[in-house]
Amino acid sequence: MSEPTPPTDGGIGTPLSPGATRALLLGGGELGKEVAIELQRLGVEVVVADRYPNTPAMQVAHRAHVVDMLDGDALRRVVALERPHLVVPEIEAIATDVLDEVARPGTRVVPTARATQLTMDREGIRRLVGEELGLPTSAYRFADSREELHAAANALGLPCVVKPVMSSSGKGQSVVRRPDQLDDAWRHARTAGRVTADPDASVRVIVEELVEFDSEITLLTVRHTGGTSFCEPIGHVQSDGDYRESWQPAVLPDGVLARAQDVARTVTQALGGWGVFGVELFVVGDQVLFSEVSPRPHDTGLVTLVSQDLSEFALHARAVLGLPVGEVLRIGGPAQGAAASCAVLAEGYGVPAFSGVDAALAVPTAQLRLFGKPEVRGRRRVAVTLARGADVAEARARAVAAAEALTVTLG
Amino acid sequence: MSEPTPPTDGGIGTPLSPGATRALLLGGGELGKEVAIELQRLGVEVVVADRYPNTPAMQVAHRAHVVDMLDGDALRRVVALERPHLVVPEIEAIATDVLDEVARPGTRVVPTARATQLTMDREGIRRLVGEELGLPTSAYRFADSREELHAAANALGLPCVVKPVMSSSGKGQSVVRRPDQLDDAWRHARTAGRVTADPDASVRVIVEELVEFDSEITLLTVRHTGGTSFCEPIGHVQSDGDYRESWQPAVLPDGVLARAQDVARTVTQALGGWGVFGVELFVVGDQVLFSEVSPRPHDTGLVTLVSQDLSEFALHARAVLGLPVGEVLRIGGPAQGAAASCAVLAEGYGVPAFSGVDAALAVPTAQLRLFGKPEVRGRRRVAVTLARGADVAEARARAVAAAEALTVTLG
Repeated sequence: MSEPTPPTDGGIGTPLSPGATRALLLGGGELGKEVAIELQRLGVEVVVADRYPNTPAMQVAHRAHVVDMLDGDALRRVVALERPHLVVPEIEAIATDVLDEVARPGTRVVPTARATQLTMDREGIRRLVGEELGLPTSAYRFADSREELHAAANALGLPCVVKPVMSSSGKGQSVVRRPDQLDDAWRHARTAGRVTADPDASVRVIVEELVEFDSEITLLTVRHTGGTSFCEPIGHVQSDGDYRESWQPAVLPDGVLARAQDVARTVTQALGGWGVFGVELFVVGDQVLFSEVSPRPHDTGLVTLVSQDLSEFALHARAVLGLPVGEVLRIGGPAQGAAASCAVLAEGYGVPAFSGVDAALAVPTAQLRLFGKPEVRGRRRVAVTLARGADVAEARARAVAAAEALTVTLG
Repeated sequence: MSEPTPPTDGGIGTPLSPGATRALLLGGGELGKEVAIELQRLGVEVVVADRYPNTPAMQVAHRAHVVDMLDGDALRRVVALERPHLVVPEIEAIATDVLDEVARPGTRVVPTARATQLTMDREGIRRLVGEELGLPTSAYRFADSREELHAAANALGLPCVVKPVMSSSGKGQSVVRRPDQLDDAWRHARTAGRVTADPDASVRVIVEELVEFDSEITLLTVRHTGGTSFCEPIGHVQSDGDYRESWQPAVLPDGVLARAQDVARTVTQALGGWGVFGVELFVVGDQVLFSEVSPRPHDTGLVTLVSQDLSEFALHARAVLGLPVGEVLRIGGPAQGAAASCAVLAEGYGVPAFSGVDAALAVPTAQLRLFGKPEVRGRRRVAVTLARGADVAEARARAVAAAEALTVTLG
C-alpha cells in the first residue's frame, strides 16, 4: 500500500482565501462536528455535505451543501465546486465509486478511496479480515432472502445476530434466540437497512454467531506520517447495536493488548492511508476476535474528549493533514484514573430541548456535548456526557449520573 | 451587586430553532473563536458581530454581521434582529451605552453592562480599583495633551509607561526612559489609541510608573452560579505591551497567591456578573499590585487549552450560561508538570500562509492554533503554540521551539 502524499507539505493557508487548505466532510453528525472543530483550529477551510440541513458539523463549518450522498452525480458536482484537498467520509452510505474518481494528486480521500469502499458495508471488511488476512472473527454467513437467512441461522446455530450489511449505529440489527424470531429480524433489517428509496431494492444481511465474549473493546488506531499509534483500549456496552457507555482504559488480561494491537495494525495496514480507525474487537479469554472497523473516529471514542490531551478528533485532523500526531497522552496518565462517556438518546418526533443541564454539570468532573441535531425521528443520540474518576467504576457512575440528570423533551 | 438570572434556567434549546439559546459575540477574534467553539459544544446558537468579515470566531459561528462596533445604532439593529439571550463583548471598543439599554430580563450582558463600561478603558477600572476599592496599584496619572503628559511624567518620575486609556494588546503603548522620548510616546498613543475615524478626536493616556516587578501574573477568576473560583496563576512575558509567552503554574512566594486571590476576588466582585475575568497583577517581593482586568478570557490564558480539563473558554461558556463550572482541574495535577503558550506574530501586509506546521507539531506535546485571520496589516498575532513539560522551563522551551519551527509568509 503506497503512502499518500500530504496535501499540505507541512503548509496550511488561510481559510476563505485562494491559498486555503480545504476539507470536504461527507456526512456531518456529532463526530464530524468535533472533527470540523479540530480542523478549524488548524486553520483549515471546512465544508460539510450531508443529506439534511443544519447537521451538527455544518453548524461549525465554513460552508454546507445538502445533497443525497448516494447520488454520484450530486457528489461529483460538490467536489468539482469545492475542489477540496481532503475528502473526509464520515458515514458509510456514500456513492463510493465517486471517491475513486476524485482521488488524485492534490485531492486525498481519507483514509483512501479503497478503504472507504471496503468498509462501506460489513461484507467487504469481513471478507478482507476473515478471508484475505485470515484473522480470527466470529463465524458468519451472508443472506439475500428470508430463506437464505433461515439456512444461515441453521448452519451457525442460535443465538445469532442479524445485521444489514450496510447500516450504522445498530440500525436494523436484531439478536435472534428462537427460530420464530427470524422473520421479524428479516423485516427489521429490510426496513432499516435499505439505503435507497426503492422498496424493491435487495437487502443483504450478515448473520453472525453471538459471541459469548468477556468484553468488547475499541482500539483507536492512528495511521500517520510517523507510523501507527494506539490509544489505550476503550471498553463499551452496546444495547440494540447502539453504544450506550464507553470508558478508558479498559483493563485486559495479560498479553491481550499486544494481540489486539497486532490485529488492529494488520487490519488498518491492509486498509491503508492516514487517519484514525476504530477497531472493534471481542475479548474471549486471552483471545481476540475481530468484529468491525470504522476508517474514521468512532462513537465509543467520544470518551477521548476528556481522557486524552489530543482527542480522537484532534488526532484524526492531524493525521489526515499529514502532520505528526506525537505521542498519544492519556490525560494525567495511569495515576489519574479513568474516564467515561454515556450516550443520551431521545425517542419520538420533534425538535429537542434540554433541561437539567445545570444538574448534569454539577456532577463532579462532568462535561457535556449537546450535538444541536435539528430534529429527532425515532430514536437518536442527541448528546453525550463525559466524566473522569479515580477508576472506571467512578468515571462511569459520574457519566451515567450526569446523563440521568438531563431531560430531553421533543417539541 | 445583584446576581444575574440565568437565561437558560438549566435549559438549552436546539440551535436554529425557535427554542434556541442564542449568544451574540461582540468582537470575534482568536479568543472569541474558542468561546464560540465551547458554546457550540453546549448546543448554543452563536452569532458574531465584528467590524470586518471572516474573523476567526465568525468561521465557527452560525451567523455573522459586519458592523462598526462603536456605532450605537448599528449595534442596536443587530441586537433587535438577533434577540440574543446573551451578549458577550470580546473587545473594549464597543458603544457600551447600548449595552445598558439591551440588558433586560431575557437578555444578559456578560458579565454585566456596568462591568463592560468600567473596563472599556483603563481609566474607569483604575479609578475603581485604586480609588474606590483602595487596592494597591502602580502610581498613575492621566493626560489629555502633550503638556499634561510632560507634567505627569515629571510628577511620577522616569521610567514610565504611556498607554492610551482605550486600546488592547499593547497598541499605542510606549516605555519612556528619557524626557526626549515623551513626544514620540504621545504621537504613538494618538495614532494607535484613536478609536474613531475623527483625526481631531481627543486621546487620553494613562501614565504609569514602571514597576520593577519580580513577576507579572494573570489570575483567571471565574464568577459563576456557585461562587468564585480561581485557576492556578499564569506567568507571562510581554514585549511592546503584547503577550509573547505564558505558562502555568507560575510559582509564587509564600502567601502571595492568597493575596492575589483576595485582590482578584475584590475587583471581580465589584464588577459583578458571571464569567471569566483575567486579572493581571504585578508581584513585587511579597506584595501584589493590581495592573489590569479583562471581564472575559485573557490572551495569556490560551495556555489553559492544554493545561486544564476545562480551558478558560469552556469555563466562560459554562459560567455565562449560569451553569456550574465544577472544580477547575489542572490537567494531570501538580505531578504532571507545567504548560506553556507562545504567540506567533506576523508583520507586514497580506494574507498569511503557514509552513513548517509539521516541524512545529513534531516538538513533543506541541499543539497549535492557527487563527484563520483573513489579513495582516502591521503586526498581528496569527497563531499560538502550546506545549506541556515536566516543569515550566521545559514547557516554555517546547512552545518556543514549535513557534520557531513555524514560518508565516504574507501573500
